[in-house]
Amino acid sequence: MVIAPLIERKRDGGALLPDEWRALIRAYVQDEVPDYQMAALAMAIVWRGLTASELAALTEGMLDSGDRLRWNGLTTPRVDKHSTGGVGDKTSLLLVPMLAACDVAVPMMSGRALGHTGGTLDKLESIPGFRTRLTLRETEAQVRRIGCAMLGQTDAIAPADGRLYALRDVTGTVESVPLIAASIMSKKLAEGLTGLVLDVKRGSGAFLPTLESALELAGTMIGLGESHGCHTVALLTAMDRPLGHACGNALEVEEAIAGLRGEGPADLMEVTYALGVEMLLVGGIDTSRTAVRARLEHVVSSGAALAKLRLMIEAQGGNAAVVDDPGALPQARHSEVWEAPRDGLVSEVVPRDIGRAIIAMGGGRHKVTDDIDPSVGFHITVKPGHRVRRGQPLATIHARDEDGLEVGRHALDAAVRLGDAAEPLPLISHRITAAGVESLA
Amino acid sequence: MVIAPLIERKRDGGALLPDEWRALIRAYVQDEVPDYQMAALAMAIVWRGLTASELAALTEGMLDSGDRLRWNGLTTPRVDKHSTGGVGDKTSLLLVPMLAACDVAVPMMSGRALGHTGGTLDKLESIPGFRTRLTLRETEAQVRRIGCAMLGQTDAIAPADGRLYALRDVTGTVESVPLIAASIMSKKLAEGLTGLVLDVKRGSGAFLPTLESALELAGTMIGLGESHGCHTVALLTAMDRPLGHACGNALEVEEAIAGLRGEGPADLMEVTYALGVEMLLVGGIDTSRTAVRARLEHVVSSGAALAKLRLMIEAQGGNAAVVDDPGALPQARHSEVWEAPRDGLVSEVVPRDIGRAIIAMGGGRHKVTDDIDPSVGFHITVKPGHRVRRGQPLATIHARDEDGLEVGRHALDAAVRLGDAAEPLPLISHRITAAGVESLA
Repeated sequence: MVIAPLIERKRDGGALLPDEWRALIRAYVQDEVPDYQMAALAMAIVWRGLTASELAALTEGMLDSGDRLRWNGLTTPRVDKHSTGGVGDKTSLLLVPMLAACDVAVPMMSGRALGHTGGTLDKLESIPGFRTRLTLRETEAQVRRIGCAMLGQTDAIAPADGRLYALRDVTGTVESVPLIAASIMSKKLAEGLTGLVLDVKRGSGAFLPTLESALELAGTMIGLGESHGCHTVALLTAMDRPLGHACGNALEVEEAIAGLRGEGPADLMEVTYALGVEMLLVGGIDTSRTAVRARLEHVVSSGAALAKLRLMIEAQGGNAAVVDDPGALPQARHSEVWEAPRDGLVSEVVPRDIGRAIIAMGGGRHKVTDDIDPSVGFHITVKPGHRVRRGQPLATIHARDEDGLEVGRHALDAAVRLGDAAEPLPLISHRITAAGVESLA
Repeated sequence: MVIAPLIERKRDGGALLPDEWRALIRAYVQDEVPDYQMAALAMAIVWRGLTASELAALTEGMLDSGDRLRWNGLTTPRVDKHSTGGVGDKTSLLLVPMLAACDVAVPMMSGRALGHTGGTLDKLESIPGFRTRLTLRETEAQVRRIGCAMLGQTDAIAPADGRLYALRDVTGTVESVPLIAASIMSKKLAEGLTGLVLDVKRGSGAFLPTLESALELAGTMIGLGESHGCHTVALLTAMDRPLGHACGNALEVEEAIAGLRGEGPADLMEVTYALGVEMLLVGGIDTSRTAVRARLEHVVSSGAALAKLRLMIEAQGGNAAVVDDPGALPQARHSEVWEAPRDGLVSEVVPRDIGRAIIAMGGGRHKVTDDIDPSVGFHITVKPGHRVRRGQPLATIHARDEDGLEVGRHALDAAVRLGDAAEPLPLISHRITAAGVESLA
C-alpha cells in the first residue's frame, strides 16, 4: 500500500475515501504501515480534521480490527456511559449498579488515570482483590448473570485504536476532536450497546476546556453512535471544580458507596441521577423522565443498587466487605485538616492542581508502568461560591507520609482561590442529541 | 530527551529554542528520537513553519551532524551554485569549469535526478569512467590542484539531513520552504564557501511553481547563507519550458560542451552567464558586472574553460575524449525527428511532460536503486512564442527502442502545445540579495 500520497492529500486539505481508510487501518495493524507514516498522518488530521464520512470509515476500521461483545438472544437493553475525564468523577461507580438494579445491562469498559484526571479502573482496583482484567467471554457471562461488569479495555477490542492511541500519546497528536471521537467510539461500539450516554466535561479541568470544543466532540460522537444504531445522548457537565468531595482512588470508592446509600454530596448525586435518567431513556426502559428518575431513586433507597454493587465486587473477586465497612479500603497513614487561610469568598477550586497533587502524592502515574498508592487524596468540602471564615476546615489531606502532606497543603493553597466573585459553570449546562443542543442552565 | 512537548509546542504555533533544536538533531542521529516523532514534528513544521531563529538552529544542527570541507590556508574564494531543479538545466556543467578558469575554486556537491527533474550527478556519470564518489579529502586535494571538483553528497556531510530527507520523502513532508531551505543550506554550508548563488526556478516545471513561494525560498536561503558568513545571491529563472535544447543525460553533457565552445543555445548561455556573473561577484573577484562578464566570455572564447573541463574529467577518472568527440558519449540506438502537426503558434513546451518521458524511456529512475540509460532524451529546438509550419522539424527523440520512440512521440504531442498566444515567463526575472528583491524583467 502506497501511503505517502494519502498523507499528502490529507495535508493539503483533501479527504481519503472510505475504502482507503479501511485498507490503511488493516495494513497498520498488520505492520505494513510504519508508525512514522501514521504519525505524520495523525498530525495532518490534527491540522485538517476529518469529514464525517472519513470519521465513520476510520472508526469502523478500528472497530473491525478486533473482537466485540456478543449478546445473541439477550433482550435486555445494553447501555454504557462514557466521561471525557475529570477530577473527583466517580459517577460510573454509582451508575453501573444503579442501572443494573433497574434491569438494564451495563458492560462498562473503562480506562486508567490519564494526565491529571482519575481513571475508573484505578478506583476499582483500590477494592482489595477486585479483578478488572476480564475476558470478553467472562464479561458476557457475568452481564447475563448479574446485569453488569466493569473491566479494562483488552487488546481484543479495537487493537488498531490501542496502537494508534499509544503513538498519538508520544507524537503530540492527542488533541484532535475526530481522533478522540474515533478512539472512544470504536471501543464503545464494540460493546454491542443499544444506547450510550456521554458525559462531556468542560471547564479548566477538562481536556477540551471550551464550550465550543466540548459541543463539537459531543456532536461528533453522537453522529458516530447514531449511525451505528446506538442511541447516543450527551450531557455537558462542569469540570471547573472537582465533582463531589472525594478525590483519590479509595476515597472516591468510599464516597460512591455513600452515594449508593443516598448520602453522597449534592453535586455528585445531581450529576449521577441526570446521567442515569439519560441512560434509562436511551435504553428504552420508559419514555417518562419522571418515571425513570423515580425508579433510580427507588433502587438507591431500597438498597437494591448497593446489593448489586456487592454482587459485582464478589463476582470480580473483590472484598465485598468494603460496601459495609469503608475501613476495609486502603487507608492513608497520615491525614490533616486544611483550613481557610483568611476570610473570603471561594472563587475557584482548580481541578488540575488537585489531580496533579494526587499523582505527586503517589496516587497516580507518571508512566504507564508506575504503581499507585490508592489511599492518598483529598476530601474537599468547599465549593466555588462558598463564603468562608479564617480557620474554617475546608478539606482533609490523606497522605502516606509527611512529604505527601506537604504536597497536599501546597496543592490546596494553590487550588482553593479566594476572590471577589465566583462564577462557577452550571453543573449540567447542555443536553445534546442527534436533534440538536438543548440548554439546561 | 522528552520530545512530545516539543512537538506539541510546534503544533500549537510556538517555537522551539535553539538549544532544543540542536539537542533534538543530535539525539535523532544517535537513534534516540524515533522516526515517528520526527515525522509528526515535520508535519507540524509543514503546517506552522519555522521562525528565522528556529531555521538557523535546525540548519546548524544538521550541518554539525557531519564533517565539512576544510580550506585552511586557501586564499582563493570558494563559490558554488545551487539550482532548485528543472528540465534541461545543465548550467552546472558549464559554470564549474568556467569559474575554475577564472581562478575561483568550485567544490560542487550535486544530487541525482528527483521527480521529473534531471540531476547533475546522473549527467556527469554519462561520461564513461567519471567518478562522482569523491571523499571530502580527495575533493579538497583536487580543488587545490585544479580549482574544481564535482561530486555526490556523501554520508559524511550533514547525515541528519540525509536521514530526515528520506523520512520526509515517505511522510508527505517534503513541501515546506523552511525544511527545503535547511536541507539545501546545511549541505552547501558544509562546503566551506565564501559565496553561493541560487538558481531558483519558477513556472510549471519547478517544485515551487509560484513566484511567491520561489521568492520565499530564495529569501529564506539567503538569510541562512548570510548569517553563516557565506555571501548568497539568488536569481529567479524560468522553468515553464526546458532550458536549452537538450534534455537527457548524455545529450545535456554534449550541449554543455558545445556551450563551452560558445555554441550553446541562446537561453542556456544567457542563464549560464547571468549565474556566472553572480558567482564571480559573490566570490569578490571584482565588483564590476561588466568586467566579470568579459572575463567569463574570455575563458569561453580562449578555450580555457574547455581545458578546465578536460582536466576535471581526467582527474575524476573519466574519458576526456568526450570533450572533443561527442561520439564518445553513450549514443541512443534510435532517433527520430518530430515535426509540427499543424501550422500554429507554440504556446507551451511543458517541462514535466518531457522530464517524465525521459524516465519512462529509461533515462531516469522510479526508485533510487534503478539503473538509468544515459543516452535517451530529446533535442527540442522549438520554444514558446515560435510560429511553426505543419511538418517543420521541432525536435529529435533519442531512444533505445521503438517503444521508447513511441513514448517520446506521445510526450512531445502533449508537451508542445499550439495555441493563440504564448506568455512564457521572463528567462531571468528577479535578483534577490540580503538587501531585497530586484525585478529584472
